[in-house]
Amino acid sequence: MRRTPFRSFDVVRIDAGARTHRAEAVALEEPLEIRVAGDTFAVTMRTPGNDRELALGLLFAEGVISSTDDVSAIAHCGRTGDAAREGTIDVTPSPGARLALPDDLPGRRGTLTTSACGVCGRQSIDDLVARLTPLPTGPALPASALARAVASLADDQPLFAETGGCHAAALITFSGVRAAGFEDVGRHNAVDKVVGAMLLARRVPLAEHVLAVSGRTSFEVVQKAALAGIPVVAGVSAPSSLAVELAVRAGVTLAGFVRGQGFNVYARAERIR
Amino acid sequence: MRRTPFRSFDVVRIDAGARTHRAEAVALEEPLEIRVAGDTFAVTMRTPGNDRELALGLLFAEGVISSTDDVSAIAHCGRTGDAAREGTIDVTPSPGARLALPDDLPGRRGTLTTSACGVCGRQSIDDLVARLTPLPTGPALPASALARAVASLADDQPLFAETGGCHAAALITFSGVRAAGFEDVGRHNAVDKVVGAMLLARRVPLAEHVLAVSGRTSFEVVQKAALAGIPVVAGVSAPSSLAVELAVRAGVTLAGFVRGQGFNVYARAERIR
Repeated sequence: MRRTPFRSFDVVRIDAGARTHRAEAVALEEPLEIRVAGDTFAVTMRTPGNDRELALGLLFAEGVISSTDDVSAIAHCGRTGDAAREGTIDVTPSPGARLALPDDLPGRRGTLTTSACGVCGRQSIDDLVARLTPLPTGPALPASALARAVASLADDQPLFAETGGCHAAALITFSGVRAAGFEDVGRHNAVDKVVGAMLLARRVPLAEHVLAVSGRTSFEVVQKAALAGIPVVAGVSAPSSLAVELAVRAGVTLAGFVRGQGFNVYARAERIR
Repeated sequence: MRRTPFRSFDVVRIDAGARTHRAEAVALEEPLEIRVAGDTFAVTMRTPGNDRELALGLLFAEGVISSTDDVSAIAHCGRTGDAAREGTIDVTPSPGARLALPDDLPGRRGTLTTSACGVCGRQSIDDLVARLTPLPTGPALPASALARAVASLADDQPLFAETGGCHAAALITFSGVRAAGFEDVGRHNAVDKVVGAMLLARRVPLAEHVLAVSGRTSFEVVQKAALAGIPVVAGVSAPSSLAVELAVRAGVTLAGFVRGQGFNVYARAERIR
């Protein structure tokens, strides 16, 4: 069984003038260097755990790989027990695979290479949309399934339960089956881990799935969903303007403020019965 | 008077099976390209407004400039009325200023250039701490001042009031005077804008100030505070483990879950009376 990734700190609790000492659990945040064929591709801050899923999901979202067929091995480098080991993961391309590394990516400029933020080197929504094929409308889902997908986030948040401070993303089928769920201090990492797990399971593109996310929905979340073929994104809080604009153009149904049985649909409401 | 940066979208509101149409305000998120001496330094997603403050604050946090003396001009490029104009800001170095551009920065690797995420090219907390001089303990502040600083965030959040979805950062003196406050879809941007405004006002380093932030506290927030000499960071929600570790080493008082008169102090509680 995996350990919940938190660390306990001694804190001073101050409340209405009274001061006590106690232990508080804090979500782990540590840097991960992702190397592709020996070269650094990105350094991202993340909650340790499921680093393979994170690396694969990020490389997929950045357009570097199109499936796990492009990768022959992915592993932490160094020896077990080496303190630095967990901080670096090596992705070895498959023989003959042609990876789209940053210099070759459309919409990138020469002076900027990639990072985990999904923005660097892309100047406009047009650059972002350039790599996306708008998703077909496909089958619809009942409103209750969408609300249930977001409610299910709370059912499996052990790190949040311990620390009160992390994001979560989960993938649920239109018929209500949970396919994957991850917590992370970084909202984008949680989504990358979900997509990475589905890549490993060879289930991408993810038609008839809902991506449920805690907190606000940025354009990167919509972008990652669209690239993975996920037709519905549902967030607990507000989307940004660019998230809405991208959802409209990418054919993604975008719901926000999903709480109880109520929510707003910002794009492509026709998928909801 | 500045317009609140939101855009209204037509949404479908679904609640317990009922479907209505209405307009919903959504926080603006758009890319900003920051150029230094004509070269792209970073592209960041941000809420438009106070781009000069954002650019200066980011360049300061990244170690590129040490004060506004290093900059002779900062302006959006292109002609007024040009649609692309607001998306690019040009920073012109002062004659003779030696800017620490990415290739020269300590802790950077050759293959990665900078981005707004504050991580790229830095591999460890040691790299992060290398640029920091631990802050002196200095004067203490009453617990009530810290709680009040965080409470004041809610007093001036017009964008959040409209949209329910953005971050905020504010700077308050130990004696309770508000020095600056900004909202942004990006939590780091809000902090960069605060520091940038103080750089323009020539008030950095910011001894005897509290940086209050909405939401969780990541290590980048602590890093930006420490570089600007801000001795106290107070967040509405949880810090990450790396934020706590960096605060301890950088000599920053870090409070979290600041709600009403109660909060946890994760580092340097000796500054609180």
